[in-house]
Amino acid sequence: MNSDEIKDAIYQLGHNARTAAHQLAQLTAEKKSDILRAMATSLRADTAAILEANAKDIDAAETKGLTGAMLDRLKLDADRVDAIAAGIEQVADLPDPVGEHLEKISRPNGIEINKVRVPIGVIGIIFESRPNVTSDAAVLCLKSGNATILRGGSEAIHSNKAIAKALQSGGEPAGLPAGAIQLIPFTDRESVAVLAGMDKYLDLIIPRGGKGLIETVVSLARMPVIKHYDGICHAYVDRAADQDLAVAIIDDGKTQKPSVCNALETVLVHKDIADEFLPKLKARLDQRGVEIRADEATQKIIDGTTPAEDADWVTEYLDLIIAVKVVDSTEAAIEHINTHSSQHSEVIITTDDAAAQHFLTAIDSACVYHNVSTRFSDGEEFGFGAEIGISTDKLHARGPMGLKELTSYQYRITGDGQIKDKARQDALD
Amino acid sequence: MNSDEIKDAIYQLGHNARTAAHQLAQLTAEKKSDILRAMATSLRADTAAILEANAKDIDAAETKGLTGAMLDRLKLDADRVDAIAAGIEQVADLPDPVGEHLEKISRPNGIEINKVRVPIGVIGIIFESRPNVTSDAAVLCLKSGNATILRGGSEAIHSNKAIAKALQSGGEPAGLPAGAIQLIPFTDRESVAVLAGMDKYLDLIIPRGGKGLIETVVSLARMPVIKHYDGICHAYVDRAADQDLAVAIIDDGKTQKPSVCNALETVLVHKDIADEFLPKLKARLDQRGVEIRADEATQKIIDGTTPAEDADWVTEYLDLIIAVKVVDSTEAAIEHINTHSSQHSEVIITTDDAAAQHFLTAIDSACVYHNVSTRFSDGEEFGFGAEIGISTDKLHARGPMGLKELTSYQYRITGDGQIKDKARQDALD
Repeated sequence: MNSDEIKDAIYQLGHNARTAAHQLAQLTAEKKSDILRAMATSLRADTAAILEANAKDIDAAETKGLTGAMLDRLKLDADRVDAIAAGIEQVADLPDPVGEHLEKISRPNGIEINKVRVPIGVIGIIFESRPNVTSDAAVLCLKSGNATILRGGSEAIHSNKAIAKALQSGGEPAGLPAGAIQLIPFTDRESVAVLAGMDKYLDLIIPRGGKGLIETVVSLARMPVIKHYDGICHAYVDRAADQDLAVAIIDDGKTQKPSVCNALETVLVHKDIADEFLPKLKARLDQRGVEIRADEATQKIIDGTTPAEDADWVTEYLDLIIAVKVVDSTEAAIEHINTHSSQHSEVIITTDDAAAQHFLTAIDSACVYHNVSTRFSDGEEFGFGAEIGISTDKLHARGPMGLKELTSYQYRITGDGQIKDKARQDALD
Repeated sequence: MNSDEIKDAIYQLGHNARTAAHQLAQLTAEKKSDILRAMATSLRADTAAILEANAKDIDAAETKGLTGAMLDRLKLDADRVDAIAAGIEQVADLPDPVGEHLEKISRPNGIEINKVRVPIGVIGIIFESRPNVTSDAAVLCLKSGNATILRGGSEAIHSNKAIAKALQSGGEPAGLPAGAIQLIPFTDRESVAVLAGMDKYLDLIIPRGGKGLIETVVSLARMPVIKHYDGICHAYVDRAADQDLAVAIIDDGKTQKPSVCNALETVLVHKDIADEFLPKLKARLDQRGVEIRADEATQKIIDGTTPAEDADWVTEYLDLIIAVKVVDSTEAAIEHINTHSSQHSEVIITTDDAAAQHFLTAIDSACVYHNVSTRFSDGEEFGFGAEIGISTDKLHARGPMGLKELTSYQYRITGDGQIKDKARQDALD
């Protein structure tokens, strides 16, 4: 296919999706749940076909030399397919966000303004190698009344196609509108550019993947983008900290799952307790095999660290490495965090409520914790039931994004003939 | 100045604004109101200087050959300066949106999640010839705790500088942080590109002006843009309409102020009442001097119309012209509107509540009315106290945007040492 044909094909998907979105917006909660359950059943029934498709992707990946975590991300087995289907059933059971009355405004002139939650419309999802995203993202969008256009990476194309086919063929007999879930069959870069430029049909685009992918989408997109950037998360150990609690929170934040965005990357320690606290922290981090990148003050107190460089304060290690710095005050900690963090999640550990309150209100990040591990920044942990990601944006959705964050709103206004200027019309007679 | 110097200068403004934003987020409601009142006083005191600056802009505009509405938009006099100052005082009196508790989530593990309204941060406003926007936009942003970087058009540069100076010199002694309100002194196109690319410092950009300006900003921006596009607003006269009420609503929507985005551009009439209704509508529109662009069915019923072309269904006339079409059903009206409207404001006129309900839920526009003029799509009319514009976007803010729509939110989470995996730590001992 040449460029024009690719563009035409993607615009056709856009047109289909817009039509489907208008139909989806009218479906009842029950209908959407029925469709989702039918999709889960279909996915399980198609397990053999999905695994066969996945085997092709794995073969190609091994030929390319992919190994380890990269290969594991791509790989499906019967349990993983079943887990994807179970995920769909969980979403089917969640409350429907659409139609919720958010606000009622009664005006002196008698008009009644109802602010009601409605779907966004058509959402583009651009993702990399995990084939489960095909289902996870489409299903959350469907539950919230949105049509999706999915564009996955080339490594998972066969798996993605098989999963999308199972969702469509299971959903459509149950009432899924044609065009509600569509996968772009092209995996070249041009298809990303076409999708990102298609503001005629796309209301939102969500890139799910590494920084490079997000940057590319941001620079191309003509419609809103919700970004899930790095988590450069900080713990600040105040001079009034319970030190054992601080060690526990830092250990959990750094080592329980280092590869995730809500893991800790930097620790700031108040100078008044640094002499006592840093050796305790070091002992625990040594047990976990964590490398410490230390500022000069920290190096003077504990041995066996690596000197920190400027880059260490803005690096998301996603590994057993942590940067440690001694600060003069809560204010200095706030200043450091507001300058260096990615505005994802930060925690203060203290027994001083005034210091905690100051920290909670002065930190400019999505999630700010007092005496709680940053690892709780997660849609499930927040009680959202599911999440499409954790937004590092400040517009529309910030922090964990559940079903409500995949909706917009509309004003429905009723009255009995109110016009702006009645006198002007009466003057006509 | 060369390109690099312009870029450096604008990035310096960005840096100043970010610092100011962190300070603004901590100001109390009282403090912000005091600052706003001091700014209003300063603006009135500077009236002579502002009018002198404005005279330079007017001279230059006249030399360029500007006349009529264009020139009027640019022109200030003592009354207009006083009105700008009075506008600031009104905003000072509005409730502060920052700090509002939006939601409280108590989790089974004992953590308490508070969702709290916070400022967005730094907002860029790009606008064209009206110098009052310098104050109006900056003041709404300030009230909602945001720093602003303003970039006005070349025609109003002297006026804009004088107004910005009055706001700064009045606000700063009252506690306005330096960098909270800044005007870019450059009016070349390059400064728009630099601002739109400065995602390091800008959280949001709002273009206020014509379609060309908005398109330019959308294509350049790396941060969220809230767009205020055209209003191609529709009235649908159902077969069960009160016809006098329909005439009144269409008259008001089209003729009371044709130049605004919530004015009507298209009327759809149910075929069952077209023979009776269209002559009544024509009689009223004739009194107002409105030209009718009619589809074939309408032409058969009333004389003296202009045949409508395809472009008429997607044109924002902003003038005494209206497109009229006969439709077969409510469903056909919905289909036409969802295909052709700009998703701003639409109205159904009917006494049939089922038809109204169907229309209200099926139309995909920001504001959908039942028996009310679309001219009420306005922040003041919605009771917001003030508005920065009417968003035709679906993300973050849709429809009239008041102070709340200039805010984001943050999760503040408190607990007593909750960690994700306690067993894993206990196993260490």
